[in-house]
Amino acid sequence: MVLGDVFVLAFVPAACVVGIVFALTQWYIVSRVSVGGHVSNNGYMHVDEDGVDDSSVVAKCAEIQAAISEGSESFLATEYQYLGVFMGIFSVIIFVFLASVGGFSFDRQPCDFDPAQSCPSSIANAFFSTLAFILGAVTSTLSGYLGMRIATYANARTTLEARRGVGKAFIVAFRSGSVMGFLLAANGLLVLFLTILGFKLYFGDDWVGLYEAITGYGLGGSAVALFGRVGGGIYTKAADVGADLVGKIEQNIPEDDPRNPAVIADNVGDNVGDIAGMGADLFGSFAESTCAALVVSSISSFGTDRNFVAMCFPLIISAAGIFVCLLTTLFATDLFTIKEMKEIEPTLKRQLVISTVLMTGAIFLVSWYALPETFTINVVGHEPKVVKNWHIFFCVGSGLWAGLIIGFVTEYFTSNAYQPVQDVADSCRTGAATNIIFGLALGYKSVIIPVFAIAAAIYLSYSLAAMYGIAVAALGMLSTLATGLAIDAYGPISDNAGGIAEMAGMSHEVRERTDALDAAGNTTAAIGKGFAIGSAALVSLALFGAYVSRAGIASVDVIQPKEFVGLIVGAMLPYWFSAMTMKSVGKAALAMVEEVRRQFRTIPGLMEGTTKPDYKRCVQISTDASIKEMIPPGALVMLTPLIVGTLFGVETLAGLLAGALVSGVQIAISASNTGGAWDNAKKYIEAGNSEHAKSLGPKGSDAHKAAVIGDTVGDPLKDTSGPSLNILIKLMAVESLVFAPFFAANGGWLFRIWT
Amino acid sequence: MVLGDVFVLAFVPAACVVGIVFALTQWYIVSRVSVGGHVSNNGYMHVDEDGVDDSSVVAKCAEIQAAISEGSESFLATEYQYLGVFMGIFSVIIFVFLASVGGFSFDRQPCDFDPAQSCPSSIANAFFSTLAFILGAVTSTLSGYLGMRIATYANARTTLEARRGVGKAFIVAFRSGSVMGFLLAANGLLVLFLTILGFKLYFGDDWVGLYEAITGYGLGGSAVALFGRVGGGIYTKAADVGADLVGKIEQNIPEDDPRNPAVIADNVGDNVGDIAGMGADLFGSFAESTCAALVVSSISSFGTDRNFVAMCFPLIISAAGIFVCLLTTLFATDLFTIKEMKEIEPTLKRQLVISTVLMTGAIFLVSWYALPETFTINVVGHEPKVVKNWHIFFCVGSGLWAGLIIGFVTEYFTSNAYQPVQDVADSCRTGAATNIIFGLALGYKSVIIPVFAIAAAIYLSYSLAAMYGIAVAALGMLSTLATGLAIDAYGPISDNAGGIAEMAGMSHEVRERTDALDAAGNTTAAIGKGFAIGSAALVSLALFGAYVSRAGIASVDVIQPKEFVGLIVGAMLPYWFSAMTMKSVGKAALAMVEEVRRQFRTIPGLMEGTTKPDYKRCVQISTDASIKEMIPPGALVMLTPLIVGTLFGVETLAGLLAGALVSGVQIAISASNTGGAWDNAKKYIEAGNSEHAKSLGPKGSDAHKAAVIGDTVGDPLKDTSGPSLNILIKLMAVESLVFAPFFAANGGWLFRIWT
Repeated sequence: MVLGDVFVLAFVPAACVVGIVFALTQWYIVSRVSVGGHVSNNGYMHVDEDGVDDSSVVAKCAEIQAAISEGSESFLATEYQYLGVFMGIFSVIIFVFLASVGGFSFDRQPCDFDPAQSCPSSIANAFFSTLAFILGAVTSTLSGYLGMRIATYANARTTLEARRGVGKAFIVAFRSGSVMGFLLAANGLLVLFLTILGFKLYFGDDWVGLYEAITGYGLGGSAVALFGRVGGGIYTKAADVGADLVGKIEQNIPEDDPRNPAVIADNVGDNVGDIAGMGADLFGSFAESTCAALVVSSISSFGTDRNFVAMCFPLIISAAGIFVCLLTTLFATDLFTIKEMKEIEPTLKRQLVISTVLMTGAIFLVSWYALPETFTINVVGHEPKVVKNWHIFFCVGSGLWAGLIIGFVTEYFTSNAYQPVQDVADSCRTGAATNIIFGLALGYKSVIIPVFAIAAAIYLSYSLAAMYGIAVAALGMLSTLATGLAIDAYGPISDNAGGIAEMAGMSHEVRERTDALDAAGNTTAAIGKGFAIGSAALVSLALFGAYVSRAGIASVDVIQPKEFVGLIVGAMLPYWFSAMTMKSVGKAALAMVEEVRRQFRTIPGLMEGTTKPDYKRCVQISTDASIKEMIPPGALVMLTPLIVGTLFGVETLAGLLAGALVSGVQIAISASNTGGAWDNAKKYIEAGNSEHAKSLGPKGSDAHKAAVIGDTVGDPLKDTSGPSLNILIKLMAVESLVFAPFFAANGGWLFRIWT
Repeated sequence: MVLGDVFVLAFVPAACVVGIVFALTQWYIVSRVSVGGHVSNNGYMHVDEDGVDDSSVVAKCAEIQAAISEGSESFLATEYQYLGVFMGIFSVIIFVFLASVGGFSFDRQPCDFDPAQSCPSSIANAFFSTLAFILGAVTSTLSGYLGMRIATYANARTTLEARRGVGKAFIVAFRSGSVMGFLLAANGLLVLFLTILGFKLYFGDDWVGLYEAITGYGLGGSAVALFGRVGGGIYTKAADVGADLVGKIEQNIPEDDPRNPAVIADNVGDNVGDIAGMGADLFGSFAESTCAALVVSSISSFGTDRNFVAMCFPLIISAAGIFVCLLTTLFATDLFTIKEMKEIEPTLKRQLVISTVLMTGAIFLVSWYALPETFTINVVGHEPKVVKNWHIFFCVGSGLWAGLIIGFVTEYFTSNAYQPVQDVADSCRTGAATNIIFGLALGYKSVIIPVFAIAAAIYLSYSLAAMYGIAVAALGMLSTLATGLAIDAYGPISDNAGGIAEMAGMSHEVRERTDALDAAGNTTAAIGKGFAIGSAALVSLALFGAYVSRAGIASVDVIQPKEFVGLIVGAMLPYWFSAMTMKSVGKAALAMVEEVRRQFRTIPGLMEGTTKPDYKRCVQISTDASIKEMIPPGALVMLTPLIVGTLFGVETLAGLLAGALVSGVQIAISASNTGGAWDNAKKYIEAGNSEHAKSLGPKGSDAHKAAVIGDTVGDPLKDTSGPSLNILIKLMAVESLVFAPFFAANGGWLFRIWT
């Protein structure tokens, strides 16, 4: 360890600033594609162009983009109003529960780490936890909102560039994804760093108190993410399913046809669900894994040694990740260019590999120079663990590489370049039923290797550095967050671009290019979800470990009835939650179907394309349904730890967290891969790029109809239930951690009455 | 406690003999319905009859019955050959592994309970464990075979009686189910009781050794059940799905139409899968829960006090159950008669309620008179638990009533008399996709209350009597086994009866009656699966507890990496297993589809009904596919505990068992309820018994087609994957228990190398 405090104080903010500047630069480049009335000469004019000068098309794109942007803004505004009320109420709950532990006393209390010193009062702790919660919630909201703005800004530009070739369109979509990736990563890190510095002014040397308060930041981030994912997920899939059911199946018009009244709502959904929801989700993972690592390290020798650099190790890793991702992005934007459609997926995959390899080197340097050669990590109920700095390199690295494995497995199971999706497509020959059976089986099978990868990372990191190892392994998986977010956000942007191309009546060729972008986007979205779930598993385990130690539980012995009952009920929660969200999507989609049918029935000239449908009505239906339907599943997740902890106590809650974690991971992975595979099986048949694919197609064939049914079923699985589940497991863990002092003091009164 | 040893020696065998005699009486009554060339006058001639004298119809029924029976016999013969080889190999493994613990020594060793005495050598223990394993396997095989014989004997008779009215048909199907229920319950108990008495001649006072050896009986029973369920499940659903895909969807001919080449295979499947597989499964649960209770009690004060009556408490409960179920059966067969179709389901449900209420009284008497007023149960790592006999009444009762709750919830979610299935049917309006989404959501939702019921039973029984409480709670749930099996077996018999009616070209009215029987059968089959899963959860937990104590594990602390890694991988296993079995059904169904299409294409006059299809070829395809495909999932379940125990040690295996248990329960319940709901949603539309149902139908409408797709998807879920999962969790637990001494002595060498 050779680095001083000054290094940390300079390096972390510098990384944030560089990340933000880089994001703005990318945005500037994207903005040079004009969506105004004229086409700018942005250096691509020598390329073979298809209708570039048709200014009416450009105007139409601008109009559609404005409608999508307006719908997204209005939904998010409504959603954030509800979130504001919820956050207000929950802030009060946090403050009251935590302050009650010390009897609402303003008196300073003896410190845990040294009873001779005095530490902030419990009311001060409660105040700072609440403040951190609010900061996390605001940052998360901001992340989602910024992501949405970027995506709606980029979608029409991607469409317009698609006229110039697939490579041009790709680069716009990819750059826009990078804007989001870097803004979120840098912004999240910066706010967290400044919060820590600010809190430190008050807490001084009480690092345990400081980092316990900081966990509120993770809770705030994930709480917003939950509602964002669930609300946005219901929105996007109600619109998508509703639009497809009437449009594609009943009226036989193509996807994204402007005559379909739900088409704007569908495209709005991509932005508020896949983009804003996902941004908030991954921000939450980042915040929580950092908090978990900080809490664990604060009760270790870093804390007692007052080693500021070592304490900030999690932040330095994230800061280094921003530089690595910046370098990685240049590979895609400047070193290579895409000329053919089939190069898209390999390019995106290469980004993952490059960032992982570069990051491995960075981790080595950071571990070597930022950590003391030897230090100790406290383990509840055991001897403190002596750890060497190169052990930590392996911990962070195991998470990083487990993430890559998960990414590759996800790609294998969801890309139509490989056997599994082709098998699913082939099963459409015998109809929708076999398609569903094969798709479900594929999802189940796709769980195996990721779970082994997660298990291996857990075993290795825990063996080397106990719970601190797990927490930094999670950080390792998230260290390439900017790249992961970039290729993930790329998906919905391409999806929207395709929608705009169709609505603006662009040529078949343009649509083919956007379809190819979109197919790759389905895979990268699945990869992104794989990362989100894998990191959520590690983060939740680290938070779970921190909770157990903070609640003073000696062991989570599942052979004991309190723990076992928690375990089995916890394993049930993801099913309960999925039942709610899927039913919500179903109900909202049915409402949408009724409305779309009504418009087709009552608006004369709609089918002929002479009259415009009432898009706004459909946007309103999706908005109302998703706001209403996001409350019960949100309440289930937010209230369960509070109720279980208060009524049944810390042991049952520990069992519940473990059960929800191990069960939720499986459903989340299988749901998102099944959905991704169905979507790409359909695209495989539509594209008809091989003899086999041609034998199943074309669009409208029986096999294709069967594939469309699978795709529709997969929508709520991959975009609502699946990705919400990783928030479920993280959020319940971080909430338990924040409330642990209250549960330990006052929890479990039902069992106390009983026994 | 007032009962003496003589009482046990008389009461248990007496119950078995009464049960067997009762079963034979029922069989005799069923046999009075003649399927020969003439119609016997069996006292029903005053009833309004429909074509009763048409002897050609009777002859046709006899012919079809013979074909089904022949197909079933031939499949089971092939399956049992493979099972024989497997059992032989596994017997050697058990013997070698267990004998190796004591270094293959013939010397007697000091007893665990009193080192001053000498107990049988480890080679003797290994020998008796292996012997018990073989006995369990043989009894399980016999149970499955007998069930199949009874069902194939009864199916045509039910069809013929359906001409005389729905009540007549119901009573034949129900009596036949009872034959199976009572034969299995009585036979299983008798063999177990005789085995214990036989082993006791050798073991003498070494009850610990005796009951450890007896666990082999449970392992043998469940191992056969696994292959029976998986092989039979693949068989039945490959045939069913294959027949439906070509028949109903492509050729537009009704279900069970004799022109469909796969129709005999489909009906054979009901007998080898739903009947033989299920019989072996529930026999396994019974054997395992008894073994678990015996093992736990052998290390408690019963064992050290040499209290034979108290030790035999689990057997007395099961014996009392036979009498209670006998009385219950008389209600359905003699006290009430069914006159209308809508009375079928309430009658079957009433059977459950009556048997539960009567059994509650019986449990009270048995607990009071067969147990000492106060006794102690040993708890690993804790003080022994002091238990009063009335505590045990509550333990057994909690299992019994939890079973009833599970039964009622299952009925609510799968019967088309209630809202959930009607909602699923309604969602067919918008096509197959919404049907699938709503069906999956229904299955997920149906998990909630059963899991709470299981959790409550676990908490209550463990609080009162530790692991012994859990084991007897499982026995409580299974104490009404004869009734449960009767109403469960009733389902496939009715299903077959409908098939025979269609194939024999009987009138629409007859078919309508058999359809009503069949719809109720779907619900009772789901209820049966609910019982099987609920009892499997309790049994597995009891076996898990016995394993932990036998392996000498102090606590299963899931915060430790060894246990947590086991937990998350264990939670993944049900997904891996389901992926295998669903893919197998899909593949086998595709092969069947090819063959059925080939026959329709190449056999002239088939569609016109002038030529017969080649039924045997389809029977052969199902047989070959299921034998081949049952091996990988079977191997996964049988080998996992061996590999994990040997390589990773007893702690990881403990985590794995807990993970598989809590995750498997959820998938099993949701899969079987989703499948049952889809099947009955289809039947709801077909029957058209309400305004709402009529608006969705008739057969062939778009909504009906969507419902057929759901039904087809549900087939492998409810009849292959779902019900196999409860065997997965039980079998891994009992196998771990049998091999525990070996793992404790020699396991975990991979971690030993690593650390």
